[in-house]
Amino acid sequence: MAKQDDIFKNVVSHAKEYGFIFPSSEIYDGLSAVYDYAQNGVELKKNIREYWWKAMVQMHENIVGLDAAILMHPTTWKASGHVDAFNDPLIDNKDSKKRYRADVLIEDYAEKLNQKAQKEIDKARERFGASFDEEQYKTTNPRVMEYLSKKKEILERMARSLETENLADVKALIEELEIACPDSGSKNWTDVKQFNLMFGTKLGASAESAMDLYLRPETAQGIFVNFLNVQKTGRMKIPFGIAQTGKAFRNEIVARQFIFRMREFEQMEMQFFVKPGEEMKWYEYWKTTRLNWHLSLGLGKENYRFHDHEKLAHYANAAADIEFNFPFGFKELEGIHSRTDFDLKAHEQFSGKKLQYFDNDTNSNYTPYVVETSVGLDRMFLAVFSKALQEETLEDGSTRTVLRLPSVLAPTKAAVLPLVKKDGLPEVANKIIEDLKWDFNVAYDEKDAVGRRYRRQDALGTPFCITVDHQTLEDETVTIRHRDSMQQDRVKISELRDIINNEVSMRNWLMKM
Amino acid sequence: MAKQDDIFKNVVSHAKEYGFIFPSSEIYDGLSAVYDYAQNGVELKKNIREYWWKAMVQMHENIVGLDAAILMHPTTWKASGHVDAFNDPLIDNKDSKKRYRADVLIEDYAEKLNQKAQKEIDKARERFGASFDEEQYKTTNPRVMEYLSKKKEILERMARSLETENLADVKALIEELEIACPDSGSKNWTDVKQFNLMFGTKLGASAESAMDLYLRPETAQGIFVNFLNVQKTGRMKIPFGIAQTGKAFRNEIVARQFIFRMREFEQMEMQFFVKPGEEMKWYEYWKTTRLNWHLSLGLGKENYRFHDHEKLAHYANAAADIEFNFPFGFKELEGIHSRTDFDLKAHEQFSGKKLQYFDNDTNSNYTPYVVETSVGLDRMFLAVFSKALQEETLEDGSTRTVLRLPSVLAPTKAAVLPLVKKDGLPEVANKIIEDLKWDFNVAYDEKDAVGRRYRRQDALGTPFCITVDHQTLEDETVTIRHRDSMQQDRVKISELRDIINNEVSMRNWLMKM
Repeated sequence: MAKQDDIFKNVVSHAKEYGFIFPSSEIYDGLSAVYDYAQNGVELKKNIREYWWKAMVQMHENIVGLDAAILMHPTTWKASGHVDAFNDPLIDNKDSKKRYRADVLIEDYAEKLNQKAQKEIDKARERFGASFDEEQYKTTNPRVMEYLSKKKEILERMARSLETENLADVKALIEELEIACPDSGSKNWTDVKQFNLMFGTKLGASAESAMDLYLRPETAQGIFVNFLNVQKTGRMKIPFGIAQTGKAFRNEIVARQFIFRMREFEQMEMQFFVKPGEEMKWYEYWKTTRLNWHLSLGLGKENYRFHDHEKLAHYANAAADIEFNFPFGFKELEGIHSRTDFDLKAHEQFSGKKLQYFDNDTNSNYTPYVVETSVGLDRMFLAVFSKALQEETLEDGSTRTVLRLPSVLAPTKAAVLPLVKKDGLPEVANKIIEDLKWDFNVAYDEKDAVGRRYRRQDALGTPFCITVDHQTLEDETVTIRHRDSMQQDRVKISELRDIINNEVSMRNWLMKM
Repeated sequence: MAKQDDIFKNVVSHAKEYGFIFPSSEIYDGLSAVYDYAQNGVELKKNIREYWWKAMVQMHENIVGLDAAILMHPTTWKASGHVDAFNDPLIDNKDSKKRYRADVLIEDYAEKLNQKAQKEIDKARERFGASFDEEQYKTTNPRVMEYLSKKKEILERMARSLETENLADVKALIEELEIACPDSGSKNWTDVKQFNLMFGTKLGASAESAMDLYLRPETAQGIFVNFLNVQKTGRMKIPFGIAQTGKAFRNEIVARQFIFRMREFEQMEMQFFVKPGEEMKWYEYWKTTRLNWHLSLGLGKENYRFHDHEKLAHYANAAADIEFNFPFGFKELEGIHSRTDFDLKAHEQFSGKKLQYFDNDTNSNYTPYVVETSVGLDRMFLAVFSKALQEETLEDGSTRTVLRLPSVLAPTKAAVLPLVKKDGLPEVANKIIEDLKWDFNVAYDEKDAVGRRYRRQDALGTPFCITVDHQTLEDETVTIRHRDSMQQDRVKISELRDIINNEVSMRNWLMKM
């Protein structure tokens, strides 16, 4: 656990120091759970977004894009259920005046029981050695059994109470478990209240005419309300998809883990419209296809796993997460949901307009079913960045920090370095840059010894360093150094463009899917 | 005037019909002055954004990107002056309950005087013919002189009153001029009040701890607050620039002209940090460079002009607009502003933190001056789209609608069309698509006669149509048809990729700058 924390701290500080992510409005001491993408972060983020877009829209003839506005008609969020049900149950401590999510307080308590059970199990494993059977122990050791059954009981009671909106019982549970305020230790709690997570704002100037709006808490609804417009003007035939990337906003009470859960974040979503009855086929198709997209980046198959939802949201008849091995453990990276016709039907009901597809083959109308793939762009950034950041011990015993970003996503593709700042080498280096910059983000660096410059580019994730030396003046060759292997090859200047392109082009990476 | 209106109506309806722009939340009867980019619009918008980004960031070694959050610490907007001064003077009509911008009511009145003067001038021109001297007439004809001097007087008095916050006099002016409510004809007005254009929202859950936030009304401040972080982590040397694209929000009272003035819009901005005293040099540099960027798209030099600001904003010591000939006349497309050190100094003052640059050459600190280039992405879209949309009469007397988008910006680069839906032609067409889709957005269309399919692609702005016919089966050639000339060439399938790439690649277009 300590090691994981260290890795995570490293990720956050490396992101700041090397210009990937800054806390938002840092000169004003920051805005909690909001971050700015810095000069290298913005390029990495853009590249991830583009890699997704190409894989989804450009590569699929039956998927088109959309860019719906953040501000939508407020009835959208009545229809989607967000006005009534997009809530967190909150509780205040009367002494510390601190506010908590009631469900998180209870889950933390349950997790402690789990840890106690785990401790007993670990002790037993040490005692029994190779012959230890954990599953058997869990169902026979009275202490472990008590911890685990108590945990199960608590979580089930909480789920039941939340589902039936019995908030009094959620409070009662907190009191019965004698849960104290983590800040003050006080057990003096207010009632539990539902708090809506949407940011509200007002459109229009006069008090009477002002319209209550929300910042969209998800991008999906922008696709649903435009479904028929896209289908008709784009002459789309089912099955077809609509893909979208864009900002969404949630007024999270407890936002944490860096860019993993932010109040302002970006989604990359695709809603795939299918014939009712065919949704499970497509659900399986998209689970596989999306996992392959992730795997194409080469961060290691072992870092991904599926998690099938046992408890389904009200709109879904099947749902799975693609979980990634973040520095703080396996967590959701992408969701694949079979949403049925819930959303389109709800918008039909609230708008009074038909949102049906006319099937030319059968000469009949129907409301399509929807399979959604939804990945957080910021989470994707964190996944790639945290896995890429590595400390290596080199043969000579020294260490280097290297950001092994998939080269297709690297902010800068090549740095051009004159070995010394004289003898015309900087001029040649700049000429190379003038030539390469039409195709790639390239950087120039002439400061410090060349070894130090290599390290700097390693830490930025730059796949190639091109060094101009005195031999260059004679035969128009340079050395090209590979970030990961640190191998250096002598090549013609005229070959550079193809060498780099071959390694970094999206075309070539997409072909790995 | 009627013709301009017709052109504009055509633009709006073509944008809807061909899947470029939909009214937001249309099934709920729309959200005023908010629009969604549809399946083709999103691609055109993405391409414009990318063309700007490459020209600014990738091509300039000393310009880096940034992606600051929409939500910022609220003190940002105190420092920038938006909390106190980003207002519109509003007035309500007590009878109709309609709300207006007081300055717009007065400007509309002044414009009517101008039109009256113009009418007199036009009549005189008809009377006098070739010998007519408009300038002389304006300074000698008593009626024209009265109209124009009255107009001048009104506008000057309004400007003075607004500047000194004398809102009572603004109301008095409306009453003296007997301006009536355009809706009801009533002259029964309330007082004039200032209304802030920022959208507000609240961060955090509890009433006591909630923080009043604003949706950013411009992206520039995200760059200023991050100036030092970027400079230090990016080791930037002055002069250098920070570029950013992103959403901004303004609660406009009178938002109109389609996507020209929206409540939610996207900016593409670059702030260039220079040594004090050198700002005018860079101001001229960026005026030229930005105009060249626009001209590289080939929409016609005659459609652009500079407009130097006579009256400067409080933060500027020089400012000019690049105006474009929109369907409703020449209007601002991009602004180039010499913002001095106003913004950095203001943030220093409000944050208590130094925002100075350390100059290694002179061993001293200074606050840089800033030259800004700021273009509206949506306006850019409207400029390109409206100028590209043309009705042509062909040789045979028929007409065609063609969207002559710069091919680098076209949503779809090529459509592949089997001449007939049999004999294996669709299979060959799909094979060509499978090959081209790694590099370009390509479309397949087999419905209707091929001539009709050509027209459809013309209306979508697709630069190339590739037709597969029976000869293709024999010699692996296809016809490639050029959107603008309608010329058809017979080429090898294996040549297609290079032909298309040569015409549409950003690299080649940027080289025209």
